[in-house]
Amino acid sequence: MKNLSTESLFKYVKVTDEFWSKYQSLVNDVVIPYQWNALNDNIENTEPSHAIKNLKIAAGEAEGEFYGMVFQDSDVTKWLEAVAYSLANKPDPELEKIADDVISLIGKAQLDNGYVNTYFTIKEPEKKWTNLCECHELYCAGHLIEAGVAYYHATGKNALLTISCKFADHIYDVFGNEPGKLAGYPGHPEVELALMRLYEVTQNEKYLNICKYFIEQRGQQPHFYDIEFKKRGETSFWHVHGPAWMIKDKHYSQAHIPLAEQHEAVGHAVRFVYLLAGVAHLARISKDQEKLGICKILWDNMVNKQMYVTGGIGSQSCGESFSCDYDLPNDTAYTETCASIGLMMFANRMLQLDTNSKYGDVMERALYNTVLAGMALDGKHFFYVNPLEVHPKSIQHNHIYDHVKPTRQQWFGCACCPPNIARIIGSIGNYIYSIKDDGVLVNLYIGNKTHIELPQGQLLLEQNGNYPWQDSIQIDVSPTMPLRTKIALRIPDWCHSPILFINDQQQELESIISQGYAEIDRIWKAGDRIRLSLPMDVMVIRGNPLLRHADGKIAIQRGPLVYCIEEQDNGAELHNIRLDSTTKFETFTGNGLFAGKTLIKADSVRIGSQDAQLLPLYSYNQPKPETKKQELILIPYFTWANRSLGEMRVWINEK
Amino acid sequence: MKNLSTESLFKYVKVTDEFWSKYQSLVNDVVIPYQWNALNDNIENTEPSHAIKNLKIAAGEAEGEFYGMVFQDSDVTKWLEAVAYSLANKPDPELEKIADDVISLIGKAQLDNGYVNTYFTIKEPEKKWTNLCECHELYCAGHLIEAGVAYYHATGKNALLTISCKFADHIYDVFGNEPGKLAGYPGHPEVELALMRLYEVTQNEKYLNICKYFIEQRGQQPHFYDIEFKKRGETSFWHVHGPAWMIKDKHYSQAHIPLAEQHEAVGHAVRFVYLLAGVAHLARISKDQEKLGICKILWDNMVNKQMYVTGGIGSQSCGESFSCDYDLPNDTAYTETCASIGLMMFANRMLQLDTNSKYGDVMERALYNTVLAGMALDGKHFFYVNPLEVHPKSIQHNHIYDHVKPTRQQWFGCACCPPNIARIIGSIGNYIYSIKDDGVLVNLYIGNKTHIELPQGQLLLEQNGNYPWQDSIQIDVSPTMPLRTKIALRIPDWCHSPILFINDQQQELESIISQGYAEIDRIWKAGDRIRLSLPMDVMVIRGNPLLRHADGKIAIQRGPLVYCIEEQDNGAELHNIRLDSTTKFETFTGNGLFAGKTLIKADSVRIGSQDAQLLPLYSYNQPKPETKKQELILIPYFTWANRSLGEMRVWINEK
Repeated sequence: MKNLSTESLFKYVKVTDEFWSKYQSLVNDVVIPYQWNALNDNIENTEPSHAIKNLKIAAGEAEGEFYGMVFQDSDVTKWLEAVAYSLANKPDPELEKIADDVISLIGKAQLDNGYVNTYFTIKEPEKKWTNLCECHELYCAGHLIEAGVAYYHATGKNALLTISCKFADHIYDVFGNEPGKLAGYPGHPEVELALMRLYEVTQNEKYLNICKYFIEQRGQQPHFYDIEFKKRGETSFWHVHGPAWMIKDKHYSQAHIPLAEQHEAVGHAVRFVYLLAGVAHLARISKDQEKLGICKILWDNMVNKQMYVTGGIGSQSCGESFSCDYDLPNDTAYTETCASIGLMMFANRMLQLDTNSKYGDVMERALYNTVLAGMALDGKHFFYVNPLEVHPKSIQHNHIYDHVKPTRQQWFGCACCPPNIARIIGSIGNYIYSIKDDGVLVNLYIGNKTHIELPQGQLLLEQNGNYPWQDSIQIDVSPTMPLRTKIALRIPDWCHSPILFINDQQQELESIISQGYAEIDRIWKAGDRIRLSLPMDVMVIRGNPLLRHADGKIAIQRGPLVYCIEEQDNGAELHNIRLDSTTKFETFTGNGLFAGKTLIKADSVRIGSQDAQLLPLYSYNQPKPETKKQELILIPYFTWANRSLGEMRVWINEK
Repeated sequence: MKNLSTESLFKYVKVTDEFWSKYQSLVNDVVIPYQWNALNDNIENTEPSHAIKNLKIAAGEAEGEFYGMVFQDSDVTKWLEAVAYSLANKPDPELEKIADDVISLIGKAQLDNGYVNTYFTIKEPEKKWTNLCECHELYCAGHLIEAGVAYYHATGKNALLTISCKFADHIYDVFGNEPGKLAGYPGHPEVELALMRLYEVTQNEKYLNICKYFIEQRGQQPHFYDIEFKKRGETSFWHVHGPAWMIKDKHYSQAHIPLAEQHEAVGHAVRFVYLLAGVAHLARISKDQEKLGICKILWDNMVNKQMYVTGGIGSQSCGESFSCDYDLPNDTAYTETCASIGLMMFANRMLQLDTNSKYGDVMERALYNTVLAGMALDGKHFFYVNPLEVHPKSIQHNHIYDHVKPTRQQWFGCACCPPNIARIIGSIGNYIYSIKDDGVLVNLYIGNKTHIELPQGQLLLEQNGNYPWQDSIQIDVSPTMPLRTKIALRIPDWCHSPILFINDQQQELESIISQGYAEIDRIWKAGDRIRLSLPMDVMVIRGNPLLRHADGKIAIQRGPLVYCIEEQDNGAELHNIRLDSTTKFETFTGNGLFAGKTLIKADSVRIGSQDAQLLPLYSYNQPKPETKKQELILIPYFTWANRSLGEMRVWINEK
């Protein structure tokens, strides 16, 4: 049997987990209404979005001019996709009515030929499809399609799916290598993964074929970006880094060479992982071994050479992009929230394609660290950029830090991250399991009840635990009738002493671990219970010797959570703290903001005196500075910057 | 008696020093001819300068359009100033003829009212003095005047001095607070210090008064930049960092508040030190205690909180500017060569104003490290930016390093640094001594013969030694008749065991040291000989605990030279080297490129293995990585990047 599409999985997964229920409630109760207000320009002291107004104008329901980014529409469709998940998790007729109205508005804004994009419809109708490289029409199409698929799965309503298909049909008609078609592809990948989702729900081969065309045409010579640039009289839309920069710097959009020839993650990190998510999806559906190989090579380069310990990717602000192998500065890191979300999407598709816990490990790392850090605990403030070290005093003055905000912002002019966080939290059910021919992979340990259809029969899984704080996971397996299948549990890379029980019988683990999963192959009967313990010792992380930004430093992790130190707990000038890797780390439960959260304390020492300002800037032949004992408090990285402004660092100087 | 002007000192100082003679020969034989070719666009594969052509066009001797920066003229006048020093050091009739012709060209390009500036004369004649903030007319005037003064002192010829006075008279007529005058001041300070030099040679009070006006008007409200911006219809000349950025960001040019209210070094580092050099000069001549106070406060902030160990200033590329206290990143440092030259100019004027060795210490530090590093040992390649750490592999990919070049460049589109290096080397004689009412300060230990006129009589000083490599300095003092005066020798901050002999009689030093100078107050007779030994132990430098970029690191200095490690001697990934501060440092004399230069070797250890690429990016609970012994070779910082491309670092990780 074919793998089940994860795209439809979320509707069968009921998240019951305390940690994640809270987040889903936050998305339902705070983020989605907040973002709805933002889309309607009802939030004070933030840049207007105008996104709903643009749709109304395009639909003929309002007068006015387009305002916003060329990809402003995608804020609406990403919000709609988040709403879809929210409705699946928690029905809300009022919200559904609002969403239905927005969908109807999109329908009215759609042209007869299927085209939807308010920027071009309102502002530059004659310029449609003339600047694929820079203008995000296919990117917006992708988000529209993703929303259409999700909304259909969540509600059973097909209005947006129909709009999506009509648009996708139009795209199929416009693009391709055949004479009379435009031999282009998107400057910002996204439509590829969306078309695969659409294919899975419709089984319409056109969508698979056009996706394959987009991927394979990318980077071919003569180069489409140059051709269209010439055709439109060498005008360019963006003037960041100089005119025509995006057209010239083809690495930025992974269009410098055909994907099959690429061996390193380069350019804009979000574009990279979105593209690769689409490629992995296509590789699975079309059983394309070459594309699987490409995915593996690029995955390995990204994860083994260019990923932060927090699961962040994209080392630099310029081009929001990768740098090169082992260049991972902590303080000037870009590590966009959306890039880590895209990384999860890519990882999830790799898990469906190639069973290996390494994908799940990275997915978990990105999720519990960078992705969650992207949103404040109040659900109302967001980080676009997720540095691993912040020194607020310097940030104000040194422009290498211009992209770094030491506190989360309300909304962004380019508001990609907030709705992306909402949709990943809402659809987290899609990431817990992978359904394989011979069973089920359990990738994430999130409390849920799930109903899975296997060829062998139906399986009910109920997962319980208090992850990521506690190490015990319990999975109750209830087939409708006794059923033989594999249930494979990911043993995280950070866990070195897992313990597995089935029905109170401890299992010998080593022999059943395959590709990082503990595979339990048996006839399951109602009432069977798996108990997995993943002891969460406090772990000391070191960087590869080639990673100069982690040199002489250690980072602390417990379970999937990377920890950090903040000025609020530990005083300013955090670089003066020295932590012995062999010190005793003690965990404790926080209170207030940290209620229910596991914090860590440890003895450390601190260099320097309070009157350092009076000391010379440089001193000669002085002994190593004296140190004082200091109890160090570590908090999970994802909870940083939820108090007052202050310093933070993940990598701590080693004593 | 008044202090003698240092501006006229160089003609009495004959540099005989081996180290500096070589540099002066390099300037005479290589740099000046090379730059002359550059100014005439005779160097292949570099951006054209067009500077001489602009003058010819403005003089009516050629047809064509202006090309180059708005301050392109200053490349010519800085070159002329360097030529003046060169002619004083080594007469060269052919070069003098070329210079005279250029001066005659400038005379022809001067308008009847005294105005000189080819950009405005040729390109925008109606826009003269309409954009003081951005357009460098007074900056160019300053360099013209400096050249005029220097050329007069060097050759006795007053053609350029006359041009300068005529221009300065015009400036005096145009600017001021009186009705009908323009209440402006330069966006780029420079004319202030030039006017003081002109005042010293002419004793014309107008030049002192207009300088004083420029300094005191700066930063007053209503703000002149805003007034002229409005007046010219809100147009702006530069579009770096967005239109009108220079007008809006008044910190950039130290015009945000009046200087008297400023307590921190901010903005463009070159502008800052040029301005303060002028202020210090004015404070001395006008005995202005308030301005002396301002100079001291700003000096102390800059030197004690914002200066690199190499004497570099300006932490960031954006705005080529200071950041904030203790923000001194090594790899993204800007530390422009010209800023350290300006720092020397400021220091030298402080020494004349306020006897204290701290100014000489910084002057020496800047000179022997950043300033010299600005030029390759071949005299043909130049650094604009002088980082303290370079990782060439990453520089290519991470745009936070866009301003950092790992190898010296031939010439720059904005070619301020090369001619500035030429003029500082040529005029190094101006920096050796300060003439005070009661004697002579010896600031720099450079072999020379000098004839000094004191009120008490003439003094001939002959300094010999092999500085900065060897610790013995010999000064033969030969007054024309026995003469009582003080000769005060700077005891460098890095020297902790100086030994002083007079005529073979060792002196007790402690009691005669005042403000960091060993003051010898006696009746000098012909044949008197001072012998000063400044033992050059290898010193280990540590940064202040607030300086996070030096945290856990040490730097090595011997004599005035800061050392660094390069990949060519020590292998790649220099961050993996650990140096014990208590290790034995051994000096030795290099060969080849390093012939005659003192290098240092020491035992160190290196972390990591050759197959680090195969290791995971992050590892859990591993012991501290193993290390291997490695002999470390350190070379003087100023000699870095004279071999093949490679890594370099000044701050070395401490074991």
